[in-house]
Amino acid sequence: MTDQNTTSRPTVRLTPKAEARAIRHGFPWVYANELVTDRRTRSLTPGSIARLEDASRTGLGVVAVNPQSKIICRMLDRDPEAVIDQDWFASRLKRALAHRDRLYDAPVYRLVHAEADGLPGVVIDRFGDVAVVQPNAAWADTLIEPLSAALKDITGVATIIMNGSGRARALEGLEDRTEVLLGTAPDAPIPVPMNGAIYMADVMGGQKTGLFFDQRPNHATAASLSRGARVLDVFSHVGGFGLAALAGGATSALAVDGSEPALALASQGAAEMGKTSQFETRKGDAFDVLAALAEEGQSFDVVVCDPPAFAPFKNALDAGLRAYERVARLAAPLVADGGYLVLCSCSHAADLTKFRNASSRGIGRAGRRGQIIHTGFAGPDHPLMPHLAESGYLKAVFYRL
Amino acid sequence: MTDQNTTSRPTVRLTPKAEARAIRHGFPWVYANELVTDRRTRSLTPGSIARLEDASRTGLGVVAVNPQSKIICRMLDRDPEAVIDQDWFASRLKRALAHRDRLYDAPVYRLVHAEADGLPGVVIDRFGDVAVVQPNAAWADTLIEPLSAALKDITGVATIIMNGSGRARALEGLEDRTEVLLGTAPDAPIPVPMNGAIYMADVMGGQKTGLFFDQRPNHATAASLSRGARVLDVFSHVGGFGLAALAGGATSALAVDGSEPALALASQGAAEMGKTSQFETRKGDAFDVLAALAEEGQSFDVVVCDPPAFAPFKNALDAGLRAYERVARLAAPLVADGGYLVLCSCSHAADLTKFRNASSRGIGRAGRRGQIIHTGFAGPDHPLMPHLAESGYLKAVFYRL
Repeated sequence: MTDQNTTSRPTVRLTPKAEARAIRHGFPWVYANELVTDRRTRSLTPGSIARLEDASRTGLGVVAVNPQSKIICRMLDRDPEAVIDQDWFASRLKRALAHRDRLYDAPVYRLVHAEADGLPGVVIDRFGDVAVVQPNAAWADTLIEPLSAALKDITGVATIIMNGSGRARALEGLEDRTEVLLGTAPDAPIPVPMNGAIYMADVMGGQKTGLFFDQRPNHATAASLSRGARVLDVFSHVGGFGLAALAGGATSALAVDGSEPALALASQGAAEMGKTSQFETRKGDAFDVLAALAEEGQSFDVVVCDPPAFAPFKNALDAGLRAYERVARLAAPLVADGGYLVLCSCSHAADLTKFRNASSRGIGRAGRRGQIIHTGFAGPDHPLMPHLAESGYLKAVFYRL
Repeated sequence: MTDQNTTSRPTVRLTPKAEARAIRHGFPWVYANELVTDRRTRSLTPGSIARLEDASRTGLGVVAVNPQSKIICRMLDRDPEAVIDQDWFASRLKRALAHRDRLYDAPVYRLVHAEADGLPGVVIDRFGDVAVVQPNAAWADTLIEPLSAALKDITGVATIIMNGSGRARALEGLEDRTEVLLGTAPDAPIPVPMNGAIYMADVMGGQKTGLFFDQRPNHATAASLSRGARVLDVFSHVGGFGLAALAGGATSALAVDGSEPALALASQGAAEMGKTSQFETRKGDAFDVLAALAEEGQSFDVVVCDPPAFAPFKNALDAGLRAYERVARLAAPLVADGGYLVLCSCSHAADLTKFRNASSRGIGRAGRRGQIIHTGFAGPDHPLMPHLAESGYLKAVFYRL
C-alpha cells in the first residue's frame, strides 16, 4: 500500500479559531479540537494521508489523520503536494542516517526518533544488520511496506523486525502486531558494542526494542567516574550502567533487577567482555534489595538507579515523585563518603526541577548531603523538535555525596 | 592571619522570622534581612568569622559575615566549633582534589567551584603547576594566607596567583588586587591540553583566570560532530571550540573574536597542535562578521556561537534574549543543510527554556528549521549545590538544521 496521488487525497481543515501560526512555525501536531471534524473527516480510516488547509483554504502541508486520536493530525510534509511513497521515506531516512553516521563508529543507534526525524510516531533502532521498527502511529502502520523497503535500501540491513506493541499504539487504536518484515529473525541475542562494553540485545523477546540507546552518554559519564570503583546498578535491565562501568575500569559491578531474563542477558554481556568474575547480579524488588544491602552494611563508590517511569502521566506525578524520593533515600546510605549517586528518571510528567528536588530531598532524608556534578539527557540520536523540547523525558542527575 | 579561636568569636543571630529550616537543610547563605543586625553586627569587619545561631540561640554553624553584602552570611562549616585554619582549608581542598583526580588525566581543571566545594565565593583554577585563586568573598580575601599554604601542600603546585578582580569582588566591597602568592609568575602563556587540543592560557594578562574550563564537555560534543567539517567559532576567545574541532578531525576552523590578544593565543594553540594551515582568525565585532560571512556566501558544517553574558542581571533579560535571538538569526544562514549550530549562553538571568526559545525563534526568523540533538551544561569540575541548582549559568544547545 502507498499514498494516494495528491489530487484524490482528502482535505482536512483547521477551525477558524485554531492556531495556524503554531503549525506554520513548525509545530507538528493538530489537536482534535482544532480541526473541522465533519462526517467526512470522522469517517477517515486511521492513518489516512490528507491535505491540511487553514480556515481560508491555504494549503499547510500533508498530514496523517487519525480521527480516533487526540492528536488528530501529524504533519508529514510542509509541501501540500508531497507524495508519501518509498522515495519520500528514503529521503527522510538518508537525512537521519547522515547524522548517526557522523556520531557513531558502529551502526548501533536509534536511527529514527519520531517527529524530530520527520517520521511522526515512528521509532527505528538499529543493531548492525538488524533494524527494529516501531510504527506507533496509524499512518506508519499502514505504510509499513514502503517504509520497510526504503529502510532496506538506505541502510542495507539484512533483517527488519516490526515491533508493534505498547501504550503508544493503544492510544492510536492500533492492535499489537510483531513480525519479521525482511530476512530472518535472529535466533540469539545480538552483541551490541557501546562505550567499550558489550550488551546483549534480545530484539525478539526483550522490552521494547531489546536495548535502550537513550542512556548511552550517561553510561559514559558514569563510566568516567568508575575507575577502581565498586559499582551498584539498580534497575539494571541488561546491565546498561554496570557493564559500562566495568569497561571504564570498575573493580566490580552488582546489577539488581526484577527480571531474570534481563539479568541473564547482563551476565552474558559481562562474559563477552571477559569480566564475569567482576560482575554479580541480584534478582529482586529494587526497593527491597536496596534496604537489604544497607542492612548488610554494604557500600559502593558509585550507585546508579535507573527506574522505570514512576510518573508517566500527569495524575501519577505526586506518587511518582514520592517514589523517586524513596529511591534516593534508600540508595544514598549505600554510597561511600565522596562517592557518586546517579539518579535517573524517564517520566514525562516529572520535569527536571521536580525530579531533582525529589531526589535531593531523599538524599537529605537519608542524612546525606551532595553536590550536583552533572545533568544528562538522552543521547544525540534522540533529537527533539524545538517546539517539543520541554518533552525531553530522560534526565540523569549525578550527585557526589 | 587566621581565624580567632572559637570562644572569642563573635556571634550573629537569625531573626525569629528567618527560615532556619532552609539553613538546616543545607542552604548556604543568610540574606541581610534574615539576620539581627544590631550595632555590633553592623560593625563587624567584612570577612569576619562568626558563630551563627537561630533565634533560640542554638548554634547552626560557622559563617563568614560581610555586613556590606546582601548575602550577609556564608556558611563555612555546620560544626559551630570548627576552626577555620590551614588544616580546615586542607580538608576541603583534599576532597575537591579527589573528585578532579578521578575525572581528569591531566591536572588542568577548576579545582574549587565556590559554595559547592565548601569554600563560599572562592574559585581556584589549576593549570598543572600553576594555580589561580579568585577570592571573591571578603572572608577568603582575609584568609588568603592559610588558604594559599593549604593549596600548596595539597596540590604541590609551584606557583599560586591571586586574581582579585571583577564584579563579584565589587559586590563584596573588595578592591582589585592581583599578586603572586607563591613562586614566580610564568613569563609566557601556559599550554593546557584538553580534548586533544592545546590551549594557551595567559594567567597573568587574560580574562578572568586566562582560560575557561566550563565548556570542556561541550567542546568535546562539538568536536564529535566535526570530523571532516568546516567549523566556524564565533566569540572564540582563545579558540575553545575551534581548536577542539580541529583535534576532532575538522578540515578547517575559523575563529572570530573582538580581542586581538585572544586570537593571537588561539593561533599559538593551533601552532602547538601543528594545525596552523587549517586555522584562521578574523578580528571584529561578531555581529558584523556574521553578516559579512553571509554576504560572502560562506557556509560551514558546524557553527558555534559562545557570546559573553548578554543577560547577566534580571533587568538585562529582555535585551539579552533579543541579542541571543539575533545571534541565532545571523548564524543560522551560515550553516550548511544538515549541519550543526551550537548556541551557548552564560547568562544567569536567562534560564534554559528562555534561552532555547530565543534561539529557536532566531533560527526560524532566518527561515531555517532545526532539531535539538543535545543540551549541555558546565563540566563536572563545576559542581552545583542542589539548593542553587537552578543557578547553573552555562547552557549549550546543539541544533541540527
